[in-house]
Amino acid sequence: LVSPEGVGPAAQGEPKVLITMGSDSDLPLMMKAVDTLRNEFGIPCLVQINSVHRDLRTVVEHIDNLPSSVQVIIACAGGAAHLPGNIADLRADLPVIGVPRDLGALKGIDALLSMVQMPEGAPVAVMAIGDAGAVNAAIHAAKELAIADPTIKERLLAYAEKRKRRVATQNQTLENKLKNFGA
Amino acid sequence: LVSPEGVGPAAQGEPKVLITMGSDSDLPLMMKAVDTLRNEFGIPCLVQINSVHRDLRTVVEHIDNLPSSVQVIIACAGGAAHLPGNIADLRADLPVIGVPRDLGALKGIDALLSMVQMPEGAPVAVMAIGDAGAVNAAIHAAKELAIADPTIKERLLAYAEKRKRRVATQNQTLENKLKNFGA
Amino acid sequence: LVSPEGVGPAAQGEPKVLITMGSDSDLPLMMKAVDTLRNEFGIPCLVQINSVHRDLRTVVEHIDNLPSSVQVIIACAGGAAHLPGNIADLRADLPVIGVPRDLGALKGIDALLSMVQMPEGAPVAVMAIGDAGAVNAAIHAAKELAIADPTIKERLLAYAEKRKRRVATQNQTLENKLKNFGA
Amino acid sequence: LVSPEGVGPAAQGEPKVLITMGSDSDLPLMMKAVDTLRNEFGIPCLVQINSVHRDLRTVVEHIDNLPSSVQVIIACAGGAAHLPGNIADLRADLPVIGVPRDLGALKGIDALLSMVQMPEGAPVAVMAIGDAGAVNAAIHAAKELAIADPTIKERLLAYAEKRKRRVATQNQTLENKLKNFGA
Amino acid sequence: LVSPEGVGPAAQGEPKVLITMGSDSDLPLMMKAVDTLRNEFGIPCLVQINSVHRDLRTVVEHIDNLPSSVQVIIACAGGAAHLPGNIADLRADLPVIGVPRDLGALKGIDALLSMVQMPEGAPVAVMAIGDAGAVNAAIHAAKELAIADPTIKERLLAYAEKRKRRVATQNQTLENKLKNFGA
Amino acid sequence: LVSPEGVGPAAQGEPKVLITMGSDSDLPLMMKAVDTLRNEFGIPCLVQINSVHRDLRTVVEHIDNLPSSVQVIIACAGGAAHLPGNIADLRADLPVIGVPRDLGALKGIDALLSMVQMPEGAPVAVMAIGDAGAVNAAIHAAKELAIADPTIKERLLAYAEKRKRRVATQNQTLENKLKNFGA
Amino acid sequence: LVSPEGVGPAAQGEPKVLITMGSDSDLPLMMKAVDTLRNEFGIPCLVQINSVHRDLRTVVEHIDNLPSSVQVIIACAGGAAHLPGNIADLRADLPVIGVPRDLGALKGIDALLSMVQMPEGAPVAVMAIGDAGAVNAAIHAAKELAIADPTIKERLLAYAEKRKRRVATQNQTLENKLKNFGA
Amino acid sequence: LVSPEGVGPAAQGEPKVLITMGSDSDLPLMMKAVDTLRNEFGIPCLVQINSVHRDLRTVVEHIDNLPSSVQVIIACAGGAAHLPGNIADLRADLPVIGVPRDLGALKGIDALLSMVQMPEGAPVAVMAIGDAGAVNAAIHAAKELAIADPTIKERLLAYAEKRKRRVATQNQTLENKLKNFGA
Repeated sequence: LVSPEGVGPAAQGEPKVLITMGSDSDLPLMMKAVDTLRNEFGIPCLVQINSVHRDLRTVVEHIDNLPSSVQVIIACAGGAAHLPGNIADLRADLPVIGVPRDLGALKGIDALLSMVQMPEGAPVAVMAIGDAGAVNAAIHAAKELAIADPTIKERLLAYAEKRKRRVATQNQTLENKLKNFGA
Repeated sequence: LVSPEGVGPAAQGEPKVLITMGSDSDLPLMMKAVDTLRNEFGIPCLVQINSVHRDLRTVVEHIDNLPSSVQVIIACAGGAAHLPGNIADLRADLPVIGVPRDLGALKGIDALLSMVQMPEGAPVAVMAIGDAGAVNAAIHAAKELAIADPTIKERLLAYAEKRKRRVATQNQTLENKLKNFGA
Repeated sequence: LVSPEGVGPAAQGEPKVLITMGSDSDLPLMMKAVDTLRNEFGIPCLVQINSVHRDLRTVVEHIDNLPSSVQVIIACAGGAAHLPGNIADLRADLPVIGVPRDLGALKGIDALLSMVQMPEGAPVAVMAIGDAGAVNAAIHAAKELAIADPTIKERLLAYAEKRKRRVATQNQTLENKLKNFGA
Repeated sequence: LVSPEGVGPAAQGEPKVLITMGSDSDLPLMMKAVDTLRNEFGIPCLVQINSVHRDLRTVVEHIDNLPSSVQVIIACAGGAAHLPGNIADLRADLPVIGVPRDLGALKGIDALLSMVQMPEGAPVAVMAIGDAGAVNAAIHAAKELAIADPTIKERLLAYAEKRKRRVATQNQTLENKLKNFGA
Repeated sequence: LVSPEGVGPAAQGEPKVLITMGSDSDLPLMMKAVDTLRNEFGIPCLVQINSVHRDLRTVVEHIDNLPSSVQVIIACAGGAAHLPGNIADLRADLPVIGVPRDLGALKGIDALLSMVQMPEGAPVAVMAIGDAGAVNAAIHAAKELAIADPTIKERLLAYAEKRKRRVATQNQTLENKLKNFGA
Repeated sequence: LVSPEGVGPAAQGEPKVLITMGSDSDLPLMMKAVDTLRNEFGIPCLVQINSVHRDLRTVVEHIDNLPSSVQVIIACAGGAAHLPGNIADLRADLPVIGVPRDLGALKGIDALLSMVQMPEGAPVAVMAIGDAGAVNAAIHAAKELAIADPTIKERLLAYAEKRKRRVATQNQTLENKLKNFGA
Repeated sequence: LVSPEGVGPAAQGEPKVLITMGSDSDLPLMMKAVDTLRNEFGIPCLVQINSVHRDLRTVVEHIDNLPSSVQVIIACAGGAAHLPGNIADLRADLPVIGVPRDLGALKGIDALLSMVQMPEGAPVAVMAIGDAGAVNAAIHAAKELAIADPTIKERLLAYAEKRKRRVATQNQTLENKLKNFGA
Repeated sequence: LVSPEGVGPAAQGEPKVLITMGSDSDLPLMMKAVDTLRNEFGIPCLVQINSVHRDLRTVVEHIDNLPSSVQVIIACAGGAAHLPGNIADLRADLPVIGVPRDLGALKGIDALLSMVQMPEGAPVAVMAIGDAGAVNAAIHAAKELAIADPTIKERLLAYAEKRKRRVATQNQTLENKLKNFGA
């Protein structure tokens, strides 16, 4: 197992979230989820490559043997994106969040449909295609963990305040820019 | 507030999940989520109509004043499905699950994209279009609540076992049917 | 409120049109609407960032407190583009024009469907994806204001004449080019 | 010219809105717009068939000779839906609203794209495919006319109140239904 | 294991093809494949339900323990159709043919993309959505088996001749019908 | 060869148009083309089934040996609609018109793209999916034949007049209906 | 009128084909049609800009007053591509060929559907999106003119021979390249 | 015939697979299939350009006269991709694998649908659009040949092992990278 628990200064301790993907080419995208969890919410995570299209049996073994501290799973894939759906079956006890990657000719619509159209019984909670989806997967995971952890709930509210202030600042900047422009 | 807490014999107590939708025409679909929460996992829920396209200010008021027992929100909508996205902004502290409804000419692809393509910061966890999505929203909500509630985790595992047995039974029935067919 | 009324030499006075968008990254696109209103029709406008996915409550406040001079609203958004639809509910008395932005993997088809498939009761008048849509939103707003303002009606007709002359000029240029080409 | 001004008890007087369509098979759909204008807002309208694919020259003549009382145009079409776009060119002075009809194999996505992707200069304000679009076209037309007519503005606000009350009633009905259901 | 080897009078012996599907609701569709293999090419097959979304571990076990006589696998699924892709990983030594089922709101385009957009390394050979796909999967399986079995090659050629004669017959019938029609 | 020349009272003589299709299940659709050619324009046609997916060699033979009177080819197909494209290669000297049939899960969008996206060098002139396409193929064929036949040109103009009169009649009927409705 | 008749050394004389487009930005694409007509088939053409979205009345006038030598019309447009459909109504006597341009966010699928889904009665013969479509429009126009002109028929056959030889040459080049590669 | 049998050090002997394409512009894509067959599985192949849109008769001749050693056909095409479907009819005795090419405005979705929606009777086994599809076509061909050739079956298993090791290596690299990153 790849064990990046304790990644970053703010995120020591047992991993609470598994962030997994089909190939290391997905890593730059998923580092946005890792960074959001670590920097915004102080949530340590485990990062692991699980390729159902290269080695499904090892995926089963990995997912069966996650550290018991892991409470939420985020899985990213592109194309015929089977990874989150397979994990949803393997772990009937853990919420699984899917991030469709914009890959190749169909620009992620293939990955979106492959993830979201799961049959009754094995839910995958799907986020937007690409960057926004990776960040939002981390926020949604934080919301899930906050059910049992009031500290994370506070950080979620603080994060929301920060986003609100950014809108106000953008409006202020815009007003200044347009005033000069109109002069 | 509509307060159906205690719906059904197995689900007495404070509501843990808000199930909300844009119109009472969505109710037959969302009763699949209510029934799954109640019958499979014993989780009481609050059912409420919130129409951002008829009365956004009241939606803000409803969502600001949810009972503090509510931990997870499931929102269903069709067409230009804004309800789950709006709630995702209003409640930065609660996970929001979206169920796109198959409504009108575009068969739900409009609702799916309106829900899933949320910008960075306000996640909606999207399920499949229609019936499978409604049931899966309930299961995913149960998985989220199970983070803090081992009883629900046990019921999730029991539910998974029941689904596995159904496959075995289907295979047995099939074998019998084909044996006679081949005779 | 950001108050760019009086932007440009030809557009002094009270703002007649609100041009609003979800983020300052939408500004270059919406400046095409601002410029068209100002330069072609002499219509002053208010430019404002309103993010329903970062701060819905402030959006409600902004939209509730628009200057009474505002008669038409133009709203731009990308992805799960909820802004125009939310404003359509908040202001049952003002026409709302939507401009879908070409953003990310799905190239604006998500924003188009999120805007256009509004349910009965809360209309959003949707324009083309991207640049043409931004300019056309301004022209359509001018047409709406022209119902009560014959000066704008004259400018609309002058604008149409200018466009017709451009076709004639293009044909003349083409004729010259092809004559030399054929010689 | 077909002249249904004064249709219905509440809508006497000069027509303010032209409601036009490519064929009489569109009439049941567009009667929803006529009825909304007449019954909700007391706005008389002119109903006319204009087929750019059967007789474009007569369409030009009709549109050139609209009664001067007409301030807004609503045009419905299916398939390669050219009618609203052609009218947008012919009347640079009047706002044109398009209603895409769900017709044939492509279920209205063809009509939607044929209307909405207008080039810079000739805006068509597009509504949802089908019934919701027809009603919303009428509401949007009323909003446009309300710029110069405070009576219509009042009726728009009353209409919005009626829609809000309907949500409250739906919630009340739901509460009663679920109470009995849970007993 | 469900063991329908020897189904039908012409197909005694060890199963050469596994026909598998996610649920018994797929059976009527896949019986078209069974019947084609049996009646047209005399190829015995094993029919089995394998649900990766209900019991992935049992699927791994089933696929690891196929009778050694099985040379080709046909897998059918709808929605987020993961079954053929998972089998393609588990059996690097056997060709896997996928049949997308037309199921639910998206009419099989979801299943098609979930199957066909497999990443490099784990091919699924995808057929048409629905009935034609089920029959063609059987024919393609026969073509694969014919590489090592000249009897099947002969039956394939006879089958093709039969299809050619059907065109000739259709033309003859048409000629007669049109002659009378023209008289 | 199936030889329905002289079908109908108005269409005696050598066939000018080949109407061909992949299967006799396409016949009801293509009879709309036959009837339009015969009844509106008096153009005799040859009707023939040519299945490139059952017997490509016979198609080559049929198309190589068309009666020399045939000047235009209309070909209908559904799904992976190869027939018109193949004929476009075989007859570099004759215009080929394609009619995509609405068949199966994808509702004709597959047939449309399979026909219209022909590479440089082998044009297929594609009409609308389904009924409108069948009739329009006949009209377009008549327009092509009219280049060398002034009688057909006259019939085309008469046909257009008839269509114009139908609009006028529809408007008259509408006016009467609405008058009574308003009384 | 722009009159490029006699463009190129081989194409003197009266124009046989009108090549028209909505804007001079379409010219580089349509020069591929002009060049093909001129260089491959010696057919003179008239090139003209006709913008139904800037000046529909002038389009009507242009199309009503085409030189009587024009027998075929090729029209190119992007987005809500109305030009060919409008011409199809205006000239019930001439075949109209449409070329959808790949323009903006939707990459030409909007233009394709706006052209191809014409209602019964006004056919547009649609070619592929972009370059291949422009060249093929020219070839199809040549095929239509060849009905009355055996010289063009010969040139079409010569053109087809040239294309066949190019395949043979490509295979020869490939063989040489692979031989060296394998050495 | 182009005869690259014996291409590469490991691939001497009679060609087992025909790799064919519509134009030499497809060659870079299909060399991925050639290289995979040669380098991973030691399978010699014949590479040939067959253009059904330039010279269908020669394609029939080529396909009728393949060396008898050829057991599997891989065909690549873009746009209205007819090549694999035509070959599927011509050779009822050989499996045909299709690779859709990402070409032009529609990014390969046209080629995918043109290949996969084959009617009952003439199967094309379709792979992913572009690079992954080309490699997977080679692997699937190897799986088909392995039915009669245990050496290829061993190489397939070795190839799968190599892919599994690559996942393990990626996880090891990731662990190291994240350890340093977290330090």
